[in-house]
Amino acid sequence: MNQKVALGIDVGGTKFLGVAVGEKGEVLVECRKPTPDNPKSILEALTEILFEIRAQLPSTALIEGVGVGIPGLIDFRGNVHYAPNLNGCNGLELGFELKSRLDFPVVIDNDATCAAVAEHLLGAAKNCNDALVFTLGTGIGGGIIAGGKVVRGAEGFAGEVGHMAVDPDGPLCPCGKKGCWELYASGSGLRYLAIQAGEEGHLKNILHHKGGKLFDIRGEDITEAALTGDIGAQTVMERFGRWLALGMANLACVFDPKLIVLGGGLVQAGDLILASVAPFFDQMVEGWRYRPTIPVVLAELGEAAGAVGAALLAKEIA
Amino acid sequence: MNQKVALGIDVGGTKFLGVAVGEKGEVLVECRKPTPDNPKSILEALTEILFEIRAQLPSTALIEGVGVGIPGLIDFRGNVHYAPNLNGCNGLELGFELKSRLDFPVVIDNDATCAAVAEHLLGAAKNCNDALVFTLGTGIGGGIIAGGKVVRGAEGFAGEVGHMAVDPDGPLCPCGKKGCWELYASGSGLRYLAIQAGEEGHLKNILHHKGGKLFDIRGEDITEAALTGDIGAQTVMERFGRWLALGMANLACVFDPKLIVLGGGLVQAGDLILASVAPFFDQMVEGWRYRPTIPVVLAELGEAAGAVGAALLAKEIA
Repeated sequence: MNQKVALGIDVGGTKFLGVAVGEKGEVLVECRKPTPDNPKSILEALTEILFEIRAQLPSTALIEGVGVGIPGLIDFRGNVHYAPNLNGCNGLELGFELKSRLDFPVVIDNDATCAAVAEHLLGAAKNCNDALVFTLGTGIGGGIIAGGKVVRGAEGFAGEVGHMAVDPDGPLCPCGKKGCWELYASGSGLRYLAIQAGEEGHLKNILHHKGGKLFDIRGEDITEAALTGDIGAQTVMERFGRWLALGMANLACVFDPKLIVLGGGLVQAGDLILASVAPFFDQMVEGWRYRPTIPVVLAELGEAAGAVGAALLAKEIA
Repeated sequence: MNQKVALGIDVGGTKFLGVAVGEKGEVLVECRKPTPDNPKSILEALTEILFEIRAQLPSTALIEGVGVGIPGLIDFRGNVHYAPNLNGCNGLELGFELKSRLDFPVVIDNDATCAAVAEHLLGAAKNCNDALVFTLGTGIGGGIIAGGKVVRGAEGFAGEVGHMAVDPDGPLCPCGKKGCWELYASGSGLRYLAIQAGEEGHLKNILHHKGGKLFDIRGEDITEAALTGDIGAQTVMERFGRWLALGMANLACVFDPKLIVLGGGLVQAGDLILASVAPFFDQMVEGWRYRPTIPVVLAELGEAAGAVGAALLAKEIA
């Protein structure tokens, strides 16, 4: 019998992560590709990665559908209204474009919504009716399960938690506001905090190894150095943890979740991220002495949660 | 035939507002009382106001049930876990206490949730599946309608939007965090901003009329003076509008509502509040150029929305 397979692509600000999942959502194939810098190349790269995944599947596999997760404002028809982390894609009719290029049913949704669907159906938030899933990548995405349902909003734009302003005197966000949460508590936020700490003289050891170039510093340099005990890197992680906890606690007050799940590229440094949040989060939730503690866990599907969720949404419409 | 009636009380930080509503939710009786400063007196005052309302109803009226809206963390059994604006009420088993004092079915819920229920069923958010209702009183409450359902959270604590931190360097909130939204954009927030502006020398005219006592200043002094064209009061209203818009836009990013409804005691100065928010709100919503504008309107049930919603919830369980 032919195996039914769904394909899912998580389009990140820096890379695509594509998967093929089997009938129980198990990942059969995984594939990566850098994110191009313009819509035409993004469309081409999307069809390429789909064919690359397909080439790795048995020829008997029956492809049910394709799901694509995109960071930003995606409406119910798969139109990209606003995607600040994808160059030039505002206004792209991605659903229409992909459907005209592919022979499979296509579904497009917000990347963090996809991750929440995957974690809710198969991962850390299984059987949990009230869960928040935050994807920490180039920005911060949010997928919200409330009362057992995905919160989608009036246009499909719900969950844009990264653009919650948490510091009116903060730096300018590409979205036009000041002090958005993702400026501090995402992958790029970690880099921002590192540069700030470097300018304050906290990162001498790391800069010594990097040849002194502060602006070459990457989030990974900080997480790796923090794990080896570098005090400067640990200072950065502490600041990062405080900012991450602040936004998580804000949304815990708003949603009263049973569970918070952290996913996205940054969770490759998962335990370090959890440890950086732990000293702050609980006590930042209003009335924390008088309510159950909200557990914070890592996405069980790890970095692939968005891609797997996109594939699961494609199965739903198949 | 006996008329079926439900009673609802909105327990505010400064006053009780009680109503009796008829079969279509129409308000038959309205009654006010100051909020006492301890749980025993609050319980007594609650039963008193219920009897006062009953005394104003025709003797043939059939009371179906009683609903009570409380600011803070109220669980599904009507236990008050945390209510920073009600002195000494943390831990009060209000559902149990009221049921043992009254012969009617009793339901207890968060006050802003009650307001959202009323506006959703009868008011400004009628037929709207995705709406945010903010009640601006001593604090800021939030009632959330998403996908046509009230968002309640795992314990019933959802909607505590007032304790979203929006300024990490802000003043200390009684909840223990710094810079909570309600410190700036509630009734007490308006007073805080007024005192700040007074200290900066902006309120000379108003202080002249008040005998120079800055700490005697009330929110109403500001709204009244702003309407008569006082520049200092208008400065305060502008700052207030910016803070209110900031939190509203944060939650618009998170929920993607079709509509935002403002209720609570402050909407007595309704048009002034709307005018103070208007210059800021739209452009603070992520991707505002690429998405529909989110209308901001006043609660149609006005200040009584919470009490009416509590009564409607009592009808539901009756």
